[in-house]
Amino acid sequence: MNAHAKPQPQTVTTGPIRGSRKVYAAPEGRPDIQIPFREITLTDPNEAPVRVYDTSGPYTDESAAIDLARGLPAVREAWVAARGHETIPGRAVRPEDNGNVSADALVAPCPAERTLRRGREGQFVTQMEFARAGIVTDEMIYVAHRENLGRAAMLAEAQARIADGESFGADIPPFITPEFVRDEVARGRAIIPANINHVELEPMAIGRNFLVKINANIGNSAVTSGAAEEVEKLVWATRWGADTVMDLSTGRNIHNIRSWILRNSPVPIGTVPIYQALEKVGGDPVKLDWEVFRDTLIEQAEQGVDYFTIHAGVRLPYIPLTARRVTGIVSRGGSIMARWCLAHHKESFLYERFDEICDIMRAYDVSFSLGDGLRPGSLADANDAAQFAELETLGELTKIAWAKGCQVMIEGPGHVPMHKIKVNMEKQLRECGEAPFYTLGPLTTDIAPGYDHITSAIGAAQIGWYGTAMLCYVTPKEHLGLPNRDDVKTGVITYKIAAHAADLAKGHPAAQLRDDALSRARFDFRWEDQFNLSLDPDTARAYHDETLPKDAHKVAHFCSMCGPKFCSMKITQDLRAEVQAMGDEERAALEGMARKSEEFLEGGGKLYI
Amino acid sequence: MNAHAKPQPQTVTTGPIRGSRKVYAAPEGRPDIQIPFREITLTDPNEAPVRVYDTSGPYTDESAAIDLARGLPAVREAWVAARGHETIPGRAVRPEDNGNVSADALVAPCPAERTLRRGREGQFVTQMEFARAGIVTDEMIYVAHRENLGRAAMLAEAQARIADGESFGADIPPFITPEFVRDEVARGRAIIPANINHVELEPMAIGRNFLVKINANIGNSAVTSGAAEEVEKLVWATRWGADTVMDLSTGRNIHNIRSWILRNSPVPIGTVPIYQALEKVGGDPVKLDWEVFRDTLIEQAEQGVDYFTIHAGVRLPYIPLTARRVTGIVSRGGSIMARWCLAHHKESFLYERFDEICDIMRAYDVSFSLGDGLRPGSLADANDAAQFAELETLGELTKIAWAKGCQVMIEGPGHVPMHKIKVNMEKQLRECGEAPFYTLGPLTTDIAPGYDHITSAIGAAQIGWYGTAMLCYVTPKEHLGLPNRDDVKTGVITYKIAAHAADLAKGHPAAQLRDDALSRARFDFRWEDQFNLSLDPDTARAYHDETLPKDAHKVAHFCSMCGPKFCSMKITQDLRAEVQAMGDEERAALEGMARKSEEFLEGGGKLYI
Repeated sequence: MNAHAKPQPQTVTTGPIRGSRKVYAAPEGRPDIQIPFREITLTDPNEAPVRVYDTSGPYTDESAAIDLARGLPAVREAWVAARGHETIPGRAVRPEDNGNVSADALVAPCPAERTLRRGREGQFVTQMEFARAGIVTDEMIYVAHRENLGRAAMLAEAQARIADGESFGADIPPFITPEFVRDEVARGRAIIPANINHVELEPMAIGRNFLVKINANIGNSAVTSGAAEEVEKLVWATRWGADTVMDLSTGRNIHNIRSWILRNSPVPIGTVPIYQALEKVGGDPVKLDWEVFRDTLIEQAEQGVDYFTIHAGVRLPYIPLTARRVTGIVSRGGSIMARWCLAHHKESFLYERFDEICDIMRAYDVSFSLGDGLRPGSLADANDAAQFAELETLGELTKIAWAKGCQVMIEGPGHVPMHKIKVNMEKQLRECGEAPFYTLGPLTTDIAPGYDHITSAIGAAQIGWYGTAMLCYVTPKEHLGLPNRDDVKTGVITYKIAAHAADLAKGHPAAQLRDDALSRARFDFRWEDQFNLSLDPDTARAYHDETLPKDAHKVAHFCSMCGPKFCSMKITQDLRAEVQAMGDEERAALEGMARKSEEFLEGGGKLYI
Repeated sequence: MNAHAKPQPQTVTTGPIRGSRKVYAAPEGRPDIQIPFREITLTDPNEAPVRVYDTSGPYTDESAAIDLARGLPAVREAWVAARGHETIPGRAVRPEDNGNVSADALVAPCPAERTLRRGREGQFVTQMEFARAGIVTDEMIYVAHRENLGRAAMLAEAQARIADGESFGADIPPFITPEFVRDEVARGRAIIPANINHVELEPMAIGRNFLVKINANIGNSAVTSGAAEEVEKLVWATRWGADTVMDLSTGRNIHNIRSWILRNSPVPIGTVPIYQALEKVGGDPVKLDWEVFRDTLIEQAEQGVDYFTIHAGVRLPYIPLTARRVTGIVSRGGSIMARWCLAHHKESFLYERFDEICDIMRAYDVSFSLGDGLRPGSLADANDAAQFAELETLGELTKIAWAKGCQVMIEGPGHVPMHKIKVNMEKQLRECGEAPFYTLGPLTTDIAPGYDHITSAIGAAQIGWYGTAMLCYVTPKEHLGLPNRDDVKTGVITYKIAAHAADLAKGHPAAQLRDDALSRARFDFRWEDQFNLSLDPDTARAYHDETLPKDAHKVAHFCSMCGPKFCSMKITQDLRAEVQAMGDEERAALEGMARKSEEFLEGGGKLYI
């Protein structure tokens, strides 16, 4: 660290989301495990508060004292410490880790102090190793309670909800126990990305039998941003629901900014180590080698990165398969490795050294995100030979990583028209033994730059339904420029929609509780409740304010769309009041009619006149 | 008309969409039929200009002289005149037609002069009647050429494209002939909404074997807007791609404003006549009767409205089926009719007088849009007994209307989770004999007010893929307030995305031409072409400008997302250059590797090492 290093301001967004408050719940007998939820209180005393999954960490806790220099509370410290891992001094920071930035431009690292650890050989380190040994970790307990939400109160109904859904072979349980989590992790069908050096993490699971998750990307670029700005991006994205965040920084100060991100992140952080390795060799892919890559893996693993994208499936023989593509290779990591392979006319060192990569990642429990370096960048290239050749190799690598005890997920496309999405999911499940799929979109058309959050949400909702465990968000700026704060929020909300639509369709037992609560609020004209139950209360309210800004309008029995005379819900309420006011005889006749109609429908017969 | 009537300003958006120009093409031997297209010229001389479907009418024609008081050119006048319909003086305008507005607040009607016509008994009037008689109308010729786009130049490939798609039993031809259009209309599988009194119309078809269409809603409300403002909404919505527009006005001056809309609309106009009928009886549903409704049908048919939403499927016995719903009846028309039925304890007069309604609509060739008055307004109510009972009745009514020679489409939901969408399409096709389906979304979750264009685009893309012929747009303001100009554009573009994604998945032969052209432009860093080929060139350009505003950046071989060093497309180009520069031997070795990989993939075997 340099004495002249720039001080970092502490301006991140804090405070609860409008209309809700942070609550914590502990599993029975484990008061040390405090699981966060966001509770939305409703204005109708007959309506129970609605608890929703909360990714936002202590930042939305009114009582939390946030100090970026100290980092977040180390909720996992005691759990990890009890496992007896080796305590290490850690690799010394080198000038190239921060892009050889000059002293006066150097961002100081986060001063938060943590014990640095590394797993020993022969010792259980990864969640998968514990799971296979039949050991339920604290992380698994945490995840189980976090995922259940309202399920405990609806066990009788849960089975019916699951049966009503269509999960394409997923195996969603009515209630999630820690043992269920353990079993899913043991068989590789779910991962809990949780580096032993990221003790600030609030554990979460990625797997097709859990809620569909979403990832948001942040990161500085050549036109750099500072540490506080990056932490704010993280806080902002998780505030609106990002389950994990990938730091795709490529600029200077990359090492030190990452330390601020990790010490202040309640969600798993993913990176693409080849980006930093490329910076270390001056930006020329041809100059990359195993040593600089290996060094980067250790550097980032020690910092606490929870998952690495490794493009080990981009093999030399597959590169010619991209020659006739419309958009070539569109993955940054994929194109870097392809360039390296071709220039040296050698097989990829990521593929050849995959065993060694596993050994490094296992020692810190860094999960694999096996990168799809040959994903299609246009509809024309979807599901082609290059893409599927790589996917088969990723399946081969999955088995190697599992044999080494590593947790694995698989990255997926890209640009794919709707009718070619399902085969991607089916092939991935088959080739990769049900390891979680983690897809970018897919975008279902190429013709809407500026709206690619939407072109891709259409594909994301479908592939999530078919079984994808995590959806990587796309912002409106995709293909055009760097997303700003509004774009990040739009991307996250759009992907929360896609993930939730998938959960509903799969038949997750508790998924519809929030929809039903909002719909009841809508029918009752409880506007405040409708806003607060929505994914983005601020925008819902602002839109309503545009035409009906007064407080009185927030209880009005109509809105500006139809006005008072044409409000269908108001008319329905009048209608119901009329039925209430009927004499017994008249009401009985009406009920008889309803029965007749229902019988008719069950019979499936012809209409009576 | 009143001498004091307010003058109407003439401010509508004109001029071509950036990067394109209006062109016209005539079918062989018919120079009198000029079909409009939008042609996007590209900067690369090796790239042919891309012709796209154009709904925007003369407003985007640089050479057109727009005069709202004269109305658009009457492109259909000669065709309709040749059919020998009766010329009529027309029904006299009454004060209640304009909501009994005071003289000083009265908007003058559009002064454009047109011959008013009505079909005679026994004479062919509707497109369906001509079609069944084996007669190909000028409208059918127009539609055939309009739909083909690039197909003429790719006949050999078209069949492969169709085979590559998944159309769920649709029957998309490699090339669309006027005879094909006639056959589709004859069997009721497509409609050409074209009132004989809407001679300004540029004919279009709605049917599952044609391009998926979208509808945008406009309309003044109690807080009224003027005629020019409504015409501008129409022009604005069609500029971005709305295929039809529904005028859902409920305020005052409703009759006169409609005259401005019709005389200036190149697209079919739909209405919900019960809205105006309700205004005529002072807003109380209970006071409605057949006479006022009948009068309103004739009034609007004479003006030239192309399709009417008629909620004739909301029958008395179905109303009790909605009693246990979470959100009751959410269709305005549905709730009005339910209230009427229950208050009078009588079967709906729309159902009982359906024959007479058909006779009126046939005489002007107004198409039916059979309204889904009992559509679900929340996930909880999706696919329930009330909804499906009504759908069955709509099937019954479809057959009656067809027997009368009327064209019919069927409206559909609503709020439906993804896994319950397909059965809606299948049931509709079965019950309604493949009459075109016209759905609102469906919204796939209830929890995102403010983003319901997205929750519904996810459902719309799917149901469009399954076979829905037209998608009614939803704007971001849905459930919250009246859409403004930006919301209308966002809604239209979002639905163009959903419709196009559906076309691609169905295997429409020419659908992917634009995607491919844009992807080639993207890979070549032809930024201008990429913007101009997109659905919204202005937004794409503006987003790019945010980070790289200079002209030089529009030819730069990178963008701000990844910067120059990390641009995958740039690296791929370097890679391809390197292959070009290789010696023959080296390149041959590379090609051998590619062949080996491809053979391996075709064999589906294990990976070789």
